[in-house]
Amino acid sequence: MSNDAQAPVVPVEAYEPPYYAAVFTAVRTQDQSGYSETNERMEDLVKGIPGYLGMDYAQTPGGLAITVAYFRDADALTEWRTNAEHRAAQRRGQAEWYQRYTLHVAKVERSHGFVRG
Amino acid sequence: MSNDAQAPVVPVEAYEPPYYAAVFTAVRTQDQSGYSETNERMEDLVKGIPGYLGMDYAQTPGGLAITVAYFRDADALTEWRTNAEHRAAQRRGQAEWYQRYTLHVAKVERSHGFVRG
Repeated sequence: MSNDAQAPVVPVEAYEPPYYAAVFTAVRTQDQSGYSETNERMEDLVKGIPGYLGMDYAQTPGGLAITVAYFRDADALTEWRTNAEHRAAQRRGQAEWYQRYTLHVAKVERSHGFVRG
Repeated sequence: MSNDAQAPVVPVEAYEPPYYAAVFTAVRTQDQSGYSETNERMEDLVKGIPGYLGMDYAQTPGGLAITVAYFRDADALTEWRTNAEHRAAQRRGQAEWYQRYTLHVAKVERSHGFVRG
């Protein structure tokens, strides 16, 4: 849910399990008017959710966009899922911005990180 | 673990939970010699794992690469993780291709898909 200019170059770290990952994989439509503004607002909103851990984003130009948002527990994810402004953005996404998408909500059981020495 | 030319434009569908997702988020090094060939070989190998469901891939140019591989159960994931050729590729990845990465292995509890009507 970031645009390319904001794409982080450091992946979200491996937190101590368990935690939650919401994997959102999307193909966008041609019409992206209003997307960036809404996206920026959603990024601000999600940062205010207690238990929000971070977000990874990548998009292949003209191809798939993947967003993975991480949360400490199911309650944090529920708070984000049921946020009224977020729900309105989701409805607009279905109406205008997304050709198709899949959401996978998953409990992380194992994680590790690697950083070049 | 695909290169851009092979990036699918259709996200992996929402399977019936539970299933597993391995989320791999990486920043690559400058030296990518040998990466494409190994990557293609890994794609062929993983398709041979019973219980492999599919893979999503996206890379922001010059930025983060995200691969999400889906498996029906933990046994399928274990078979992939312990595959000798895969482990050799992982070692080479640490030695040559990756600046940093994080792996999150997670059990999908909930999923849904959207396709524009």
